[in-house]
Amino acid sequence: MTAAAPPPGAPAALRPRAAHDLPARLARSAAATGQGHHLRTDEVPGWLAERARAHRFAVRRTPLDRLDGWSFTPDGGDLVHHSGRFFSVRGLAATVDEGPFTRWQQPVIHQPEVGILGILAKEFDGVLHFLMQAKMEPGNPNLLQLSPTVQATRSNYQRVHQGARVRYLEHFAAPARGGRVLADSLQSEHGSWFYRKSNRNMLVETTAEVPADEDFRWLTLGQIGELLRLDHVVNMDARTVLACLPMAAPGPEALHTDTELLSWFTAERARHDVDVRLVPLDGVEGWRRGADGIGRPDGRYFRVTGVTVEAGNREVTGWDQPLLEPCGTGVAAFLYRRFGGVPHLLAHAKVEAGYLDTIELAPTVQCTPGNWDPVRADERPPFLDAVLDADRRGAAHYAAEHSEEGGRFLQARIRYLFVAADEEAAPLEPPPSYRWVSVDQLNSLTAHGHYVNVQARTLLACLTTGAVRL
Amino acid sequence: MTAAAPPPGAPAALRPRAAHDLPARLARSAAATGQGHHLRTDEVPGWLAERARAHRFAVRRTPLDRLDGWSFTPDGGDLVHHSGRFFSVRGLAATVDEGPFTRWQQPVIHQPEVGILGILAKEFDGVLHFLMQAKMEPGNPNLLQLSPTVQATRSNYQRVHQGARVRYLEHFAAPARGGRVLADSLQSEHGSWFYRKSNRNMLVETTAEVPADEDFRWLTLGQIGELLRLDHVVNMDARTVLACLPMAAPGPEALHTDTELLSWFTAERARHDVDVRLVPLDGVEGWRRGADGIGRPDGRYFRVTGVTVEAGNREVTGWDQPLLEPCGTGVAAFLYRRFGGVPHLLAHAKVEAGYLDTIELAPTVQCTPGNWDPVRADERPPFLDAVLDADRRGAAHYAAEHSEEGGRFLQARIRYLFVAADEEAAPLEPPPSYRWVSVDQLNSLTAHGHYVNVQARTLLACLTTGAVRL
Repeated sequence: MTAAAPPPGAPAALRPRAAHDLPARLARSAAATGQGHHLRTDEVPGWLAERARAHRFAVRRTPLDRLDGWSFTPDGGDLVHHSGRFFSVRGLAATVDEGPFTRWQQPVIHQPEVGILGILAKEFDGVLHFLMQAKMEPGNPNLLQLSPTVQATRSNYQRVHQGARVRYLEHFAAPARGGRVLADSLQSEHGSWFYRKSNRNMLVETTAEVPADEDFRWLTLGQIGELLRLDHVVNMDARTVLACLPMAAPGPEALHTDTELLSWFTAERARHDVDVRLVPLDGVEGWRRGADGIGRPDGRYFRVTGVTVEAGNREVTGWDQPLLEPCGTGVAAFLYRRFGGVPHLLAHAKVEAGYLDTIELAPTVQCTPGNWDPVRADERPPFLDAVLDADRRGAAHYAAEHSEEGGRFLQARIRYLFVAADEEAAPLEPPPSYRWVSVDQLNSLTAHGHYVNVQARTLLACLTTGAVRL
Repeated sequence: MTAAAPPPGAPAALRPRAAHDLPARLARSAAATGQGHHLRTDEVPGWLAERARAHRFAVRRTPLDRLDGWSFTPDGGDLVHHSGRFFSVRGLAATVDEGPFTRWQQPVIHQPEVGILGILAKEFDGVLHFLMQAKMEPGNPNLLQLSPTVQATRSNYQRVHQGARVRYLEHFAAPARGGRVLADSLQSEHGSWFYRKSNRNMLVETTAEVPADEDFRWLTLGQIGELLRLDHVVNMDARTVLACLPMAAPGPEALHTDTELLSWFTAERARHDVDVRLVPLDGVEGWRRGADGIGRPDGRYFRVTGVTVEAGNREVTGWDQPLLEPCGTGVAAFLYRRFGGVPHLLAHAKVEAGYLDTIELAPTVQCTPGNWDPVRADERPPFLDAVLDADRRGAAHYAAEHSEEGGRFLQARIRYLFVAADEEAAPLEPPPSYRWVSVDQLNSLTAHGHYVNVQARTLLACLTTGAVRL
């Protein structure tokens, strides 16, 4: 027996399984708008612009076969880095059991390692603030956006003990020492563009002194919510982490019990036949490699393209890489209704070929409308036209354009919306594979992985930060 | 707007998200021992023996190349059924980052479809009873065991609307009508023998009249618990479903908060490098196909063998199939301690090649001791010798031998144990990849898939049914 151990049978330090004060503390931070401890919200865009000027950033297109460090493998033509690290572009062959497209092939990003997306929290003046980073990513429409405290690949964070090169990483790599984990789950990324990619989404509260850095600022949740009402300011990695904040239920009632909701989800996941295989990139049907990258003659979906990056505030000062460039702006929208005073979202159990397991909960509408132009009216995604119409009429409760992960996607713009619905637009008994879910229910599912997809998490972040109140 | 819809803004029927009366009702059923509404516990073995006599059952070994309906594919030698249904035996190549074995190949069972394991519940005399089936499976040591109400493959249950051939399936295929779902989650099966297999584990309560069938009996949880103290009476499918009963926490305290537990699990899942691919069966290194099946010259792990089955109470009267036959009896044991009066189990975040995602929580010890005989002492599984020693001394709090899924495994015997530990045997700060988890915490994780592995669920079923009280 070690000296430090309690004697057998002695009471050990038990703790409540749940931190009951946390929802109220998060709500207080979400209510703190206009002004944080360190700066006003309206000072943030100027600070971001100043950080953009302080660093040399340049991104220019480069043909795939001239990307430094990247090449097509001789057997299969996959696009890989010579180090074997980062990611590769491979082929994917999918067969699904529903929808107008049941068999297809496509390029896909393959990156089996799990990265960390972490936001550090700390109380100032009794209000939780979150340490946000001004970070450049080559695919962002405006290059520099507000990002998590840490975005680290596993190769980054496993290097931490030989001297951290990613600022503040120590708070996430070993949070047991001096920090308190508020949320930590593996969340999926885009199922149409990534093959089974997930990242750790972490929120850690610290009471330690945190040294300042000129690329970082502490903001309240309410301030981040204000910034989420602007286009292209809060990056995708920040949004997905913020969605996982455990806001909990003050009034724990909903249309369906949690068990009914999980049972419906389980049935949806179990009922689909989805067969997905990685295949050689050079044999992918319907796609061609040309001077401007790998794309489709019909111009749909996306193309794989290359960029050369020059930057001054990164671990390295310049690099080449492929990026996936979507064709057209996407739309991701939740229809919502109040039932008995409780706001509910109409979630869609959506099949995407890149998911680890068949389906995840997506917004009511999630697609790139242009891809559906040639499709018969009765096969278009349900609720799409209602959402586009509400947006055209300016009738959406919330509408903003955000961009997806700028380290992998080039100018991937999605218009995010909340649209109020009534019984006619979205009935209490929705079509199969749709279900009304309370905001609290959707939020609490983010404690676990592979329930709530990345687009739904962006919309959820609008709710956890108070950018949107339903 | 449809006629049945509530007017916009009218209060809809909200319900509490959780059924707060359920844990007490389950506890009442677990306390009901000796005698249920329909029969005494000590009458069950006799009833099972009578059902075994009532049906013609015969299982004999048949060489793999003479199994009716099965053949080796010409390209790769996978063992498949001519219908393309049921399952196939393929090859698996694994590379993992830890342990004495970091690269290996093996045969594996591939069955991508999700089946239903469902137990129907109903109150008699104010106590929940569970409808258990006397069911034959060819791999069971004693052929007939107590099974869930329904064990159905997807091909079974999707046929339900053309006239159900699986008794009581309608309660699970459309539980919304007339039933109340108590639990419904996708749970994994054996990660060493199956490639990413999972089944729906369902518990449904009904208030409807349920017609009797001579192969079925209603038992209380307490009665099932009494039968779990006997060897080879309650089958694996029943055990895994019973583990998912939401017993909840009367005293919601534990050594670690739920968030800390999930964070540790997330870190364990994220840190491993596991590469697993399906490969052709005929090229699997270290395995040979001979007259008695596919096995290893060193006699370790398992062999793939064939059987011919004759039965009278199945959908078909006879069939041939391959079965996986483990070499030697396994052991699965939880070390347990009370901290502050709350029982905790020492869970192991265990890598298995067949898991959908890297790791799941396993018992403290889970292995086939014989496979580890040639391994250096310092590389043997932690806690294995302590468990074997306690078992030899008769010092285990619980020890019984159960068999694994008799439809896929032949005589797959595992000795299941609970062994009390102290600080010396199992310290408060256990080795990496081990963690103390309260019984309630482990039980509540079964609401979601891929947290608690199938061996841990057998041990958990001993706790939810009251077979074991810690």
